[in-house]
Amino acid sequence: MATVVSLAQQPGPPSRRALDKLKTLVGEDLAEVNDVILARMHSRVPLIPELAGHIIAAGGKRLRPLIMLACARMCGYAGSRHVKLAACVEFIHTATLLHDDVVDDSGLRRGNATANAVWGNQASVLVGDFLFSRAFQLMVEDGSLRVLDILSSASAVIAEGEILQLLTTNDTATTEDAYLEVISAKTAALFSAAARLGAVVADRPRMEEEALESFGRNLGIAFQLADDVLDYSAHEVTLGKAVGDDFREGKITLPIVLAFRRGVDEERAFWKRTLEDGARTDADIGQAIAYLDARGALADTLERARHYGAKARDALGIFPESEVKRILLDVVDFCVDRAH
Amino acid sequence: MATVVSLAQQPGPPSRRALDKLKTLVGEDLAEVNDVILARMHSRVPLIPELAGHIIAAGGKRLRPLIMLACARMCGYAGSRHVKLAACVEFIHTATLLHDDVVDDSGLRRGNATANAVWGNQASVLVGDFLFSRAFQLMVEDGSLRVLDILSSASAVIAEGEILQLLTTNDTATTEDAYLEVISAKTAALFSAAARLGAVVADRPRMEEEALESFGRNLGIAFQLADDVLDYSAHEVTLGKAVGDDFREGKITLPIVLAFRRGVDEERAFWKRTLEDGARTDADIGQAIAYLDARGALADTLERARHYGAKARDALGIFPESEVKRILLDVVDFCVDRAH
Repeated sequence: MATVVSLAQQPGPPSRRALDKLKTLVGEDLAEVNDVILARMHSRVPLIPELAGHIIAAGGKRLRPLIMLACARMCGYAGSRHVKLAACVEFIHTATLLHDDVVDDSGLRRGNATANAVWGNQASVLVGDFLFSRAFQLMVEDGSLRVLDILSSASAVIAEGEILQLLTTNDTATTEDAYLEVISAKTAALFSAAARLGAVVADRPRMEEEALESFGRNLGIAFQLADDVLDYSAHEVTLGKAVGDDFREGKITLPIVLAFRRGVDEERAFWKRTLEDGARTDADIGQAIAYLDARGALADTLERARHYGAKARDALGIFPESEVKRILLDVVDFCVDRAH
Repeated sequence: MATVVSLAQQPGPPSRRALDKLKTLVGEDLAEVNDVILARMHSRVPLIPELAGHIIAAGGKRLRPLIMLACARMCGYAGSRHVKLAACVEFIHTATLLHDDVVDDSGLRRGNATANAVWGNQASVLVGDFLFSRAFQLMVEDGSLRVLDILSSASAVIAEGEILQLLTTNDTATTEDAYLEVISAKTAALFSAAARLGAVVADRPRMEEEALESFGRNLGIAFQLADDVLDYSAHEVTLGKAVGDDFREGKITLPIVLAFRRGVDEERAFWKRTLEDGARTDADIGQAIAYLDARGALADTLERARHYGAKARDALGIFPESEVKRILLDVVDFCVDRAH
């Protein structure tokens, strides 16, 4: 008898399905999170929900809130605090994106015009400040000083990471370790806080809290490294940003760090000219990708991402088997494999 | 017998002396606040204390921390929580200034080059975010959810006020009431939170807390209105900014609101051309001041400031006589009279 595999169960590549499965599993919670986001970005100043709604509705994956909802579920949490806190995490993330786009002078995010391109840098800076304040108001309403401690510390670390990135931009002397320090702060800190809060709201023992902190941190690093690879390989429709955006902004990411170190003098001169001296044109992007490929820099950045993905998976080892745990393990693969 | 008045007791105009007296009275507390500020703007990223130190050390009056220390003293507070919280208020204020200067594209503050002029807009946005996060960490260390509630709400209101101001910039249709709404949010909210916290840390009854909230709010409005007058009248050395900065940035402040409404068609055309259409040169500043003077707009803005100053003074009525209360009453006069 032939085995029949229903195509209806395979609407996309395996790892993309993981995210859809997670969204289905915590669908009710996620809908509530979206309600809180909509309700709490309201202000008597209409520009605020207008601008914030533009970026929040622009098709983000809600990955950080999803991680938090899933971790709370895995910890057996049956209350409702995670809804408000997941919205809070998304507000912090959105405030960071608004300020990032101003700092990078970006025109496109997820295939849409950035808020600063539509409303100007001034409004983006100030609405980012508002969302950040609103996030803290949500935390205060939750009323836990432990939660406030975790998220205010994460926010300070994120800001430090953004500043570190600003300082390494254009600097080809940036080492792999220095770059990891940047992304551990600017990207992984919020992932780890989101995951950890799942255990905190469920009042689980310290061991589980630390396991989730490690899970989130390594997942965040893997996610960022895959993002770095995508920037040089994705179609605009997939990633919602143009190929080579990081290159255009002179950003040093791990693929560049590797290619610079592995390259001969001619290649290093190319990277210095284009990234350090800023003498780059769009025509250089093709050459950049050719050098990255020739030195295996994209493939090996993906290998590094898999390393952190493996650490994230192992961090979940102490939790008993469950549907949500299986899906979280698959989400790790999604975060890495989407860069294929 | 002739009355001898020692000149040594009158080193400056009466109201300026009030601020010096306050600094002497709470001098030990203020020194501790400065220590906390220095210690807590530290980061493993050297640019952060460097940039933050530039603006924090640039001769600010520390007015908001001083108000808080004095209010705590007036409420009989004998603990030490007010030190950390006063530093926290100054961090929020500094973060706001950093973002303000980016939004206004300012080059000079208190007679010094602005941080964005020295380090660029990108670093100013991100270090502002860091200081804001650090302020919340300080609050979390204090451990009071009431304090966190008051300051996170104030922060959201400040951001709303900044956005409101951005929207009224260049808009000569702005009414006096609309302008008061802007400055109540962007300036007075932090003054009122700072004053109120004096009663909160001292665990005083609601009536005193609300009296101080009212004191701070009205003082903040008076302070801002005097600032608006100073912008058209001060010598650069006094205010540390050039005369006419608000005009150059197309900002609608109360003197403009009054002069526009009181002016004839020719004057309104002037204000519309220079502020709304942006067709202004430095040569227009002389004409602007002449119109403001002719319409009594500066003198009457000062009258309005005195009105809010009087409300601030009366708000202190429920507190028994004390040295610190007398000085606080004089500080109100300083905030208004410095615009002479």
